[in-house]
Amino acid sequence: MLDFEFCNPTKIIFGRDTIAKLDEQVPANARVLVLYGGGSARKTGTLDEVIQALAKREVHEFAGIEANPTFETLMGAVELVRNEGIDFLLAVGGGSVIDGVKFVAAAVPYQGDPWEIVESSKVKVRSAVPFGSVLTLPATGSEMNKVSVISRRETQTKLAFDSPHVFPKFSILDPSKTFTLPQRQIANGIVDAFSHVVEQYLTYPVEARAQDRFAEGLMLTLIEIAPKALVEPPDYNARSNLMWVATLALNGLIGAGVPQDWASHRIGHELTALYEIDHARTLAVVMPSLMNVCRAAKKDKLLQYAERVWNITEGDEEERIEKAITETRAFFEGVGIKTRLSDYDLGPEAVGAIVKQLEEHDMVALGERKDITLEVSRTILEGAL
Amino acid sequence: MLDFEFCNPTKIIFGRDTIAKLDEQVPANARVLVLYGGGSARKTGTLDEVIQALAKREVHEFAGIEANPTFETLMGAVELVRNEGIDFLLAVGGGSVIDGVKFVAAAVPYQGDPWEIVESSKVKVRSAVPFGSVLTLPATGSEMNKVSVISRRETQTKLAFDSPHVFPKFSILDPSKTFTLPQRQIANGIVDAFSHVVEQYLTYPVEARAQDRFAEGLMLTLIEIAPKALVEPPDYNARSNLMWVATLALNGLIGAGVPQDWASHRIGHELTALYEIDHARTLAVVMPSLMNVCRAAKKDKLLQYAERVWNITEGDEEERIEKAITETRAFFEGVGIKTRLSDYDLGPEAVGAIVKQLEEHDMVALGERKDITLEVSRTILEGAL
Repeated sequence: MLDFEFCNPTKIIFGRDTIAKLDEQVPANARVLVLYGGGSARKTGTLDEVIQALAKREVHEFAGIEANPTFETLMGAVELVRNEGIDFLLAVGGGSVIDGVKFVAAAVPYQGDPWEIVESSKVKVRSAVPFGSVLTLPATGSEMNKVSVISRRETQTKLAFDSPHVFPKFSILDPSKTFTLPQRQIANGIVDAFSHVVEQYLTYPVEARAQDRFAEGLMLTLIEIAPKALVEPPDYNARSNLMWVATLALNGLIGAGVPQDWASHRIGHELTALYEIDHARTLAVVMPSLMNVCRAAKKDKLLQYAERVWNITEGDEEERIEKAITETRAFFEGVGIKTRLSDYDLGPEAVGAIVKQLEEHDMVALGERKDITLEVSRTILEGAL
Repeated sequence: MLDFEFCNPTKIIFGRDTIAKLDEQVPANARVLVLYGGGSARKTGTLDEVIQALAKREVHEFAGIEANPTFETLMGAVELVRNEGIDFLLAVGGGSVIDGVKFVAAAVPYQGDPWEIVESSKVKVRSAVPFGSVLTLPATGSEMNKVSVISRRETQTKLAFDSPHVFPKFSILDPSKTFTLPQRQIANGIVDAFSHVVEQYLTYPVEARAQDRFAEGLMLTLIEIAPKALVEPPDYNARSNLMWVATLALNGLIGAGVPQDWASHRIGHELTALYEIDHARTLAVVMPSLMNVCRAAKKDKLLQYAERVWNITEGDEEERIEKAITETRAFFEGVGIKTRLSDYDLGPEAVGAIVKQLEEHDMVALGERKDITLEVSRTILEGAL
């Protein structure tokens, strides 16, 4: 096992009808800004529930945080928080809204241009406005981690920052709040959570046995529940498992003490930034091809993955690896997520454009061994055509 | 899945040579009390390392916290903390020392007789002296939870209390610090951790799939590493897996959203209180018999346990359950822990004495369904003769 530090102070409140508990979690005298995305939070009644639970507190609202939240939009919220003397933020939505709120929380007290927080790994966030979340879309794990991914329209950039100051104080997870989601978003959530696990698992073995078993357990659960999570009318058990698994997939636990990859995410972020493809879909495109291209470096873990996750025990090593990659692709396709660049109307010309963006963002040595050079990224993308 | 709240703010610092990091974790101007058990912390040099890492801070020491830490001993530390104006506690040892420090931390600011904290579930701890731990014995999970078990010699009582105020601020887990432990304590740790998982897993199904997979993963890991964890010279990989698994077995995570049993612990505590049998050994005695007696109520989970943990797929349901119980007993015996009351020189007369103690401590409706009455406890103990 590798040495590690792990700390995750976010309080999770899980179950039906838990929004009312906001009243216990938000300081009684807080001046609150509730931030959300499009109209769905209002349409579904969740926003009303939230406002009601906040009771007599002074509550402001900030709507319009987009999927892949942008610096441009979020700076409007930063200004509002500063002007209104707001001292508590509440994200109501999915990973994009929560990521956006993390940026706002860190940007408000930041001295200087807040874009530096995102752009420079040298900038350390020293404080943040406290915030909580009401999760409505299980996928990213942002509700229980310290990571945020922010885009900038002006430069077609999508970058991550992290800080222990941007752990949510609490997150309310009510699986029944997912009942109004379109199937597309449930499918995205399944693939996103699965991919998060793969990034922390499919590297090289360091005899971190509990981490491996936990990762495999999350993947097995996603495979088992995927069909049930997609049925209508929605199944509470399937949705509650999806919600908790998506949180556990990226709360730091399974990644503690093991090498991590994240190359599929880095390459995927460029796909989203350039072509506005849903985050999960970019992962479904890049990951199977990456498994194939990096099969030598990841051999031991690919064989373990084949056996423990897909129950593949027949055939020689190359055949088992091949089958595991095929199963992975079939799993993504099975929930309705296409896995080829051509499915998104992108051809060979996109490969060069993405590689160029990777170069511009200094993503020239990706993966757990830093051996995914621009040339390897190009090969991965060509394999995904 | 059941509704739940989960929050665990303890920071884990895991790896070799991590004691030096105390200097970053303990406030620079703290007046520190270092608490430990017998002479081993000093003999092994761990105490010296700790004192050195604490550098220029004012450091006091309190030695002599025993296995099954007693109220009588700990009140000496409470007095010392109060008299010397100490504002940070550091536990150096295993679960007993950490449990003891949790009590001291809660007792110092408590108005009234501190035994009330342990004795009455109605007493709420409202504050505690902050503390950290340096773990030297993997077993109880106390290093990352809010539970403490305290004994009182005077009344032969062993009871648990819990409070979010007694989460350690940090715990330092250096697997190489286990290298000087006697085999008996490693074996106890393996059984203790395994039993913690069983208490949170072997109940009735609520479709909490990730929790089940995590619990199974911890048990599988313990089964895999047990032989390696016991070899000399010690194996760092095996010890690091044991240490992390023991922490994960009781940090609240696998128990979130599922029913929990804990009857084996309640009965086992009386065995320790009356006969001074090591905690883990009492669990090894009670648990296989409890599985047998409660096999109807636990049937679904026993079958899942048989298949996923012991790979038992042949035979009818009763046979598979029988085999799983046999494997459990063999696992405990295999690490050198005896599983019969008679192995500890106890006969039928002990059964009555233990049941009497259970009655005195109001342990009259145990288990996840509260259906383990005194009569059922008696049957379990008789089955363990």
